[in-house]
Amino acid sequence: MQAYSAFIERVKDIHRLGALQGHLGWDQETIMPAKGSEARSDILSWLAAERHTRLVDDEMGRLLTQLEQSSELDDDQQANVREMRRAYDKAIQLPAEFVAAFAKAKSEALLSWQKARAESDFLSFLPQLESLIDMTKRKIAYYGGEKNPYDVLLDEYEVGMKVTDYDPLFAGLRARLVPLLQNITEAQITRPDPTLPEGMRFSIEAQTEFCLKVSEAMGFDFSAGRMDASTHPFSAGLWPGDTRFTTRFDEKDPFSCLYAVMHETGHALYEQGLARIHSLTPRGDAVSLGVHESQSRFWENQIGRTTAFWETALPWFREQFPDAPDWKPEELNRIANTVSKGFIRVEADEVTYNLHVMLRYEIEKKIFNENLPVSDLPATWNAMFEEWFGVQVPNDTMGCLQDIHWSMGAFGYFPTYTLGNLYAAQLLESMQSDLGDIDTLVSSGDWSSLLQWLRPRIHEQGSKMSPAELIEYATGSPPSPEPFLRYVEAKYGSLYGL
Amino acid sequence: MQAYSAFIERVKDIHRLGALQGHLGWDQETIMPAKGSEARSDILSWLAAERHTRLVDDEMGRLLTQLEQSSELDDDQQANVREMRRAYDKAIQLPAEFVAAFAKAKSEALLSWQKARAESDFLSFLPQLESLIDMTKRKIAYYGGEKNPYDVLLDEYEVGMKVTDYDPLFAGLRARLVPLLQNITEAQITRPDPTLPEGMRFSIEAQTEFCLKVSEAMGFDFSAGRMDASTHPFSAGLWPGDTRFTTRFDEKDPFSCLYAVMHETGHALYEQGLARIHSLTPRGDAVSLGVHESQSRFWENQIGRTTAFWETALPWFREQFPDAPDWKPEELNRIANTVSKGFIRVEADEVTYNLHVMLRYEIEKKIFNENLPVSDLPATWNAMFEEWFGVQVPNDTMGCLQDIHWSMGAFGYFPTYTLGNLYAAQLLESMQSDLGDIDTLVSSGDWSSLLQWLRPRIHEQGSKMSPAELIEYATGSPPSPEPFLRYVEAKYGSLYGL
Repeated sequence: MQAYSAFIERVKDIHRLGALQGHLGWDQETIMPAKGSEARSDILSWLAAERHTRLVDDEMGRLLTQLEQSSELDDDQQANVREMRRAYDKAIQLPAEFVAAFAKAKSEALLSWQKARAESDFLSFLPQLESLIDMTKRKIAYYGGEKNPYDVLLDEYEVGMKVTDYDPLFAGLRARLVPLLQNITEAQITRPDPTLPEGMRFSIEAQTEFCLKVSEAMGFDFSAGRMDASTHPFSAGLWPGDTRFTTRFDEKDPFSCLYAVMHETGHALYEQGLARIHSLTPRGDAVSLGVHESQSRFWENQIGRTTAFWETALPWFREQFPDAPDWKPEELNRIANTVSKGFIRVEADEVTYNLHVMLRYEIEKKIFNENLPVSDLPATWNAMFEEWFGVQVPNDTMGCLQDIHWSMGAFGYFPTYTLGNLYAAQLLESMQSDLGDIDTLVSSGDWSSLLQWLRPRIHEQGSKMSPAELIEYATGSPPSPEPFLRYVEAKYGSLYGL
Repeated sequence: MQAYSAFIERVKDIHRLGALQGHLGWDQETIMPAKGSEARSDILSWLAAERHTRLVDDEMGRLLTQLEQSSELDDDQQANVREMRRAYDKAIQLPAEFVAAFAKAKSEALLSWQKARAESDFLSFLPQLESLIDMTKRKIAYYGGEKNPYDVLLDEYEVGMKVTDYDPLFAGLRARLVPLLQNITEAQITRPDPTLPEGMRFSIEAQTEFCLKVSEAMGFDFSAGRMDASTHPFSAGLWPGDTRFTTRFDEKDPFSCLYAVMHETGHALYEQGLARIHSLTPRGDAVSLGVHESQSRFWENQIGRTTAFWETALPWFREQFPDAPDWKPEELNRIANTVSKGFIRVEADEVTYNLHVMLRYEIEKKIFNENLPVSDLPATWNAMFEEWFGVQVPNDTMGCLQDIHWSMGAFGYFPTYTLGNLYAAQLLESMQSDLGDIDTLVSSGDWSSLLQWLRPRIHEQGSKMSPAELIEYATGSPPSPEPFLRYVEAKYGSLYGL
């Protein structure tokens, strides 16, 4: 079909430009020398404008309309038309100069944030952050979203999700997580968590070797990907056959790196499992951030933070850290699942994690629906954190500067992390009923059946269905918070003898 | 001037696409996972086609014609028009599909060569090499160069140079280098060269530290660049503020890495010294391969292979290699200048180096002017090497598979290396008459005046003049082989007591 071929050539060009942006973004955050930043901003801005120009091309609009009227398209082709229609409709509302300026502002803000975070200097980041928020508000205005501004942002990251969806969902979660946290805190008085020995150091080389082993055991193909270091760990499916993830190192705490690697490997396995035949088209892309996060959280938490995991991983750990205490798998599991009212989201346990997310959600809602002044952000963050967690934030590096997202203009992104936790728990229940006891599988050391279960049900489906349809396709049930609540209450109830 | 602004916007877009190609090429040769190669071929081919399409755009032709008739352009602007005219005239003769297919073939050949070289398996590389040579012949035909086909290739890499220029130049060099080599070989019987101790190992970490120190002392700005490892060392001025070079490591021989680093840093200093104000236009580009090579050879040989260099570098060397023998600067200098009839061009001394280049030149001339079958290449190489050097090539890794150039479709490139040697010697003589004794400067440890001399005379000039004009601008004399012959005869005469 000629119109579809013409359409798909244009779609592939747009994806190529996106892959170039992704590649240069990866490079910027891992290995680019500092003085490359000005030229990097220029080229990223140029690529964004080129991509935008091609997306909003009149011929693209004409082809979309023609293909929407066709009855000859199969499911995969329809998915491509559907997804490009959504992207096209969003894009035609934004002027090309705005898109280019926004991309440039994001690139500059990212560098400013890196410096501000290192020095805990919010004021040095404030002008860039204000500019990003201002431009985001202009974007919302272009989309005609003045009435429910934050909904526009939420929908961008998980289609169909609004404040009226998240508000009751988060209230329901909070209603059961807060008492659970309270019970755990009380139990910790008489049952203190094991800790890492004071003063012990875990070398970066040994951490690297250990983590590469774990990532490989999960099924990551290192002949089709890489692991590097960056300030904030991330994963990027840059090109077919080339998926790269990053981690960070803390010589005092090997768990920080380990669970970053399991998390990012989870994302990266999704990217490696996408259908190659659909490369450079939406059908071959991951469907949503929520589903992406379900893959990372599944491996990081449901698999990685279990005694069964440590039964397999303990010999690898001992090989790299021969001077570490003679821990048993159960002890390592308790260390890995310590609940604490810590400051850093990415290091949070499964009980408090969603509270961290909700805090960011509430602040974003204030910024976009109530026009909170950006300069008030640290005070607002710190007050809310103290109210929810009962502890004082010592500085902005531990507070509102900790996440990369806002410096990338990614407002409305955080709530998808909680969706990921919910989906992951649902996938685990369903996998368990297909494969039998997952702990038995994990402690056997051969984890291949887990990945094999995920491949056809999630990874290979790409964006064929909507996120909600995909979860139902994979598990037989629509998305629900119940499996997560069952999982977290059972797990931590057992860990803390509740 | 409106036409010039429109023209320069187009020129910058073309340069951006070129910079993207350069960046992905760097990535492919340093860090890309193996399975990324197919998608990498696709995107490099797509970028080449995009760049070609923009270059041959009718509007570009119209703007060039209009600007060539203008009397309002300054020297820099005229240089941009002149260089883009040459690129345009070449490009309009090549169909876009041919350009894309050629880029793809080069990308595939590079990977095939890497494997073939590692396994010394010429036959596995033969199909890709035949295809590249076939496409190069088609390119020559598109340029209408059937009468003097090899001249078309030579002109691509150093404008204005032809077989009728190189043949007498090379004959003249050979006439004085061959007796010099003969005298050295005889002298070596009674005066054996010092050698590295058998069995000694120099760790990659220590080599890295030592070489970083040397590169920094040369003036390389590591906040605007990187050093990495690759099979074949190279340097790439990817973006303004981001220049990357590579090296390779041999644990038995730290000189291999050191002189690769000094060579590539020489290239990289040229890139870092280009005029930022002219970025993304030809005026801000390096003028030619010959001039580029003069910068690398200047630092590698005229500076690096001297007793004066070792007087400064010896403490750094001792710090990294405390177990090495207690060499004096004079001994290290003799090791670094050992003349030998070795097989590998990039490890050759200054006496034999140009013979290696001439061998490749003669073979390329046979391929393109006499239709030598590609399958005869190893036999032809080996026979000629034995005739010129008096030793038998043990395998193709040490022979015709050693260089990356042919796998990149770079035929006609090698002769520019000899031009670089000639220009470098000319620059040294001129610098010496401006700055006084260079050995005194080099042994002082402060090399900044050398770079300061090169910056305004070579680097900042970019492509404002032709290569020959630039050499005359910098030295006061047109290009000549005499300074090189004076230099090499004096240096090796003294080293070998001739």
